[in-house]
Amino acid sequence: MTVTTLNSLAAALGLELRGSNIAASTPIQGMAVLAAAGPAHISFYHNPRYHADLRKTHAAAVILRAEDAAQCPVACLISPNPYLAYAKASQLFDRRPIEAATIHAAAHIDASAQVGVGVAIAANVVIGAGAIIGAGTIIGANCVIGPDCRVGTDCRLYPNVSLYHGVVMGDRCIVHSSVVLGSDGFGFARDGGRHHKIAQLGSLVIGNDVEIGAGTSIDRGALADTVIEDGVKIDNQVQIAHNVRIGSNTVICGCSAIAGSSSIGKNCTIAGAVGVVNHVNICDHVTITAMSLVNHDITEPGIYSSGTGIDVTGNWRRSIVRFRQLDDMWRRLLRLEKHQNKSPG
Amino acid sequence: MTVTTLNSLAAALGLELRGSNIAASTPIQGMAVLAAAGPAHISFYHNPRYHADLRKTHAAAVILRAEDAAQCPVACLISPNPYLAYAKASQLFDRRPIEAATIHAAAHIDASAQVGVGVAIAANVVIGAGAIIGAGTIIGANCVIGPDCRVGTDCRLYPNVSLYHGVVMGDRCIVHSSVVLGSDGFGFARDGGRHHKIAQLGSLVIGNDVEIGAGTSIDRGALADTVIEDGVKIDNQVQIAHNVRIGSNTVICGCSAIAGSSSIGKNCTIAGAVGVVNHVNICDHVTITAMSLVNHDITEPGIYSSGTGIDVTGNWRRSIVRFRQLDDMWRRLLRLEKHQNKSPG
Amino acid sequence: MTVTTLNSLAAALGLELRGSNIAASTPIQGMAVLAAAGPAHISFYHNPRYHADLRKTHAAAVILRAEDAAQCPVACLISPNPYLAYAKASQLFDRRPIEAATIHAAAHIDASAQVGVGVAIAANVVIGAGAIIGAGTIIGANCVIGPDCRVGTDCRLYPNVSLYHGVVMGDRCIVHSSVVLGSDGFGFARDGGRHHKIAQLGSLVIGNDVEIGAGTSIDRGALADTVIEDGVKIDNQVQIAHNVRIGSNTVICGCSAIAGSSSIGKNCTIAGAVGVVNHVNICDHVTITAMSLVNHDITEPGIYSSGTGIDVTGNWRRSIVRFRQLDDMWRRLLRLEKHQNKSPG
Repeated sequence: MTVTTLNSLAAALGLELRGSNIAASTPIQGMAVLAAAGPAHISFYHNPRYHADLRKTHAAAVILRAEDAAQCPVACLISPNPYLAYAKASQLFDRRPIEAATIHAAAHIDASAQVGVGVAIAANVVIGAGAIIGAGTIIGANCVIGPDCRVGTDCRLYPNVSLYHGVVMGDRCIVHSSVVLGSDGFGFARDGGRHHKIAQLGSLVIGNDVEIGAGTSIDRGALADTVIEDGVKIDNQVQIAHNVRIGSNTVICGCSAIAGSSSIGKNCTIAGAVGVVNHVNICDHVTITAMSLVNHDITEPGIYSSGTGIDVTGNWRRSIVRFRQLDDMWRRLLRLEKHQNKSPG
Repeated sequence: MTVTTLNSLAAALGLELRGSNIAASTPIQGMAVLAAAGPAHISFYHNPRYHADLRKTHAAAVILRAEDAAQCPVACLISPNPYLAYAKASQLFDRRPIEAATIHAAAHIDASAQVGVGVAIAANVVIGAGAIIGAGTIIGANCVIGPDCRVGTDCRLYPNVSLYHGVVMGDRCIVHSSVVLGSDGFGFARDGGRHHKIAQLGSLVIGNDVEIGAGTSIDRGALADTVIEDGVKIDNQVQIAHNVRIGSNTVICGCSAIAGSSSIGKNCTIAGAVGVVNHVNICDHVTITAMSLVNHDITEPGIYSSGTGIDVTGNWRRSIVRFRQLDDMWRRLLRLEKHQNKSPG
Repeated sequence: MTVTTLNSLAAALGLELRGSNIAASTPIQGMAVLAAAGPAHISFYHNPRYHADLRKTHAAAVILRAEDAAQCPVACLISPNPYLAYAKASQLFDRRPIEAATIHAAAHIDASAQVGVGVAIAANVVIGAGAIIGAGTIIGANCVIGPDCRVGTDCRLYPNVSLYHGVVMGDRCIVHSSVVLGSDGFGFARDGGRHHKIAQLGSLVIGNDVEIGAGTSIDRGALADTVIEDGVKIDNQVQIAHNVRIGSNTVICGCSAIAGSSSIGKNCTIAGAVGVVNHVNICDHVTITAMSLVNHDITEPGIYSSGTGIDVTGNWRRSIVRFRQLDDMWRRLLRLEKHQNKSPG
């Protein structure tokens, strides 16, 4: 982080610095929310919910829209999209340690693997035969990259990631710890009670600019490949089964599970702990709310939900008894209506 | 994969090759679904849903039942159970790299551990005191096998698996990356607000032919052992708590959670993201559909479900308001019926 | 375990040994539930559900309340809180191998890291620059501790745990295998369809006496820190997102997911597979039952639930059809009531 003053920060972000009392040479140490920010912090305002915080903020400057500048008691950094400007500013303040582009002596790299220029490989990394690691990629300690994998350029794998053989990953991907990529899909043929394993002959192909959260697993395909398209963002502890396709720029939040051979369109938002059963197709531009079960195709863009919402347990117990009687209730209601129609009332 | 022609493939699978235009010496490179298969692929047909694909397939040959052979435009491989024959054929085409039966110089194996013949141990594996690894087992890079574990013969542990002390595993088991076996059960005794840890004195005993998916965790027992019987297949990110017993040949799909001291019978199918609360018994031959909550014993074989199914969020919001009023609706319905019975209609 | 007789066990636990036929010098080998206990086992009785088992037990002695002693056919160890006494006794029988307080030659510890006295560091552990490891802490094989982390005293990290940079952990914490601490929160700013990553500038701060189960992930904060207060117990495969705060002594069971910026009070119990959506506040002393979705603030202590409970699938299918018609049912019910009030009945 070379930006150290309000002036240089504005320049780095390409934002207009505006206000009556600008201390352009104020040293800036970090970012904070409006209510917590002090005179060495930058903040941002994009949601009217925080209007009262804006009016009282002690930040050095606030990133906000031009039309909100008059409400701001401190210096303003004007942006048509303050949340996006915040995202860009946040990168400038990231104190994440820089990894030196060196290969640790205790890494085990097969002689047939190809490692690009400027690659950082930490201790205890194991890279299999025929694997290709693109230039500028960082591989954290104790990662295992299987034979014949192809990892693109400028990727970052955090510690303890496992890639099975033949996984393909594009450029600028971020993979968090304990992720497993290309594990076997869950496929068996029954023979009486016994289950015969179906070898998973496909692989896993991940596009560019994909982020995969801690503890997520994505299986390889049974015959063809499991595919994660460009720009997909996947949160922690997500499970993606074999043969799934996730369309570009779709976001999948934590703990969701996508069962085998389902496909999700582009620009979808799958909230947390959602389940999608197997062989389901979801079209583009669909939002699924938290903990919903998608048990059939969705062919129209829109927002979809399932579940009952939370209630006090005592009342909930009565509701679930009645839930099981719903079809009976329905029939009795119809009978009453029929009777009413015949009645003189 | 030594099978390279249609003829030799039929021989290897013990299937009859039938059809009018068989090119028995056709080189076969792999398998594909009917719609994607080309002249160097084998395919299979077992589900009428794909009948149109069968009629148009370009596969070299299709595994199918004798009664479907007339519908097939290419060579047929006749099987009474085409899906099972597909499973067996898939094994012949698996290009998974073979692990050499060697012990990597950077593995750390306690001097008191016993390692069988033909075992492959990859880099950075750590094996504790008194552990026993059966003949022919493959242990992937960065696995940690705790003291006194017993791993059977011909098992395969993929990279980054952790076994706590004293875990017992049978023969021919497959354990995928990031799996944790024998971790402490979640047990505490309250003392006012504080929680005193209960030492987990039991272990985890896994039978033969068990497969455990990526990121799954299975806790050791509190006093007795957690038990996974022979032939159980567990998908990714499943959580199995202490003292649980899973009956033989039961299948548990991704992200399901089985709470403490519950037992699941034999030959059950637990779909994805199912929850089973603690101290519940499920009998043999039960199927639970996706994302259901099993909150009481199940004593009859059959199919069980919970949840509401997905809906457009606007309509869903109205439904969940009424869900909380269900008991009130019920009472008002009864009142109307009572009134009607008294009325002259 | 130096306790080997009933007498010495009673002394170690500070419990009164009572009964008519006490063999005080009986060698005690372990603990078991009442029904399984033999003459070399201690057992405990605290739940009337097991009264029949108590009457028939063959244990050497049973930990129970004074008022239950008359029902016990064997020696009694009198405690006002038998379950708590069981927890303490269980620690005496834990056969978990002791880790020697040594640093393995194959550990990679940055020269600038500080390691306290009596620390055990296993093979392939990687500890980054500036990290501090407190006295008496045990770090299992293949753990990765990022730069600038601070781990307290007498903690235990099991194998394959990953800590990102700057994570702070108190004393006496237990962290199970495949846990990920301090991974990036899931934050993006949209720019049309594209998602710009928001750098996660906060960290993760964990108090004293916290236990974190296998495969759990806890993200670092976006601007401020994610906070886990003292005495929190978290089970396996839990996901805790950025900016979350978990109050002291709260218990979170397996597979639950707490979304970003939510807070949970003190002394709460979150059962398994619960979902809490983002920006929700839950007050102290709240219990959420298994697989509930918390989709709004909870401001009153109590027990809360959602979902429908399990049913035979055939009946369930009818119920979910009617669930989608609930608002229509409600309106028709109101219409019937209105009609009835006008009718002469």
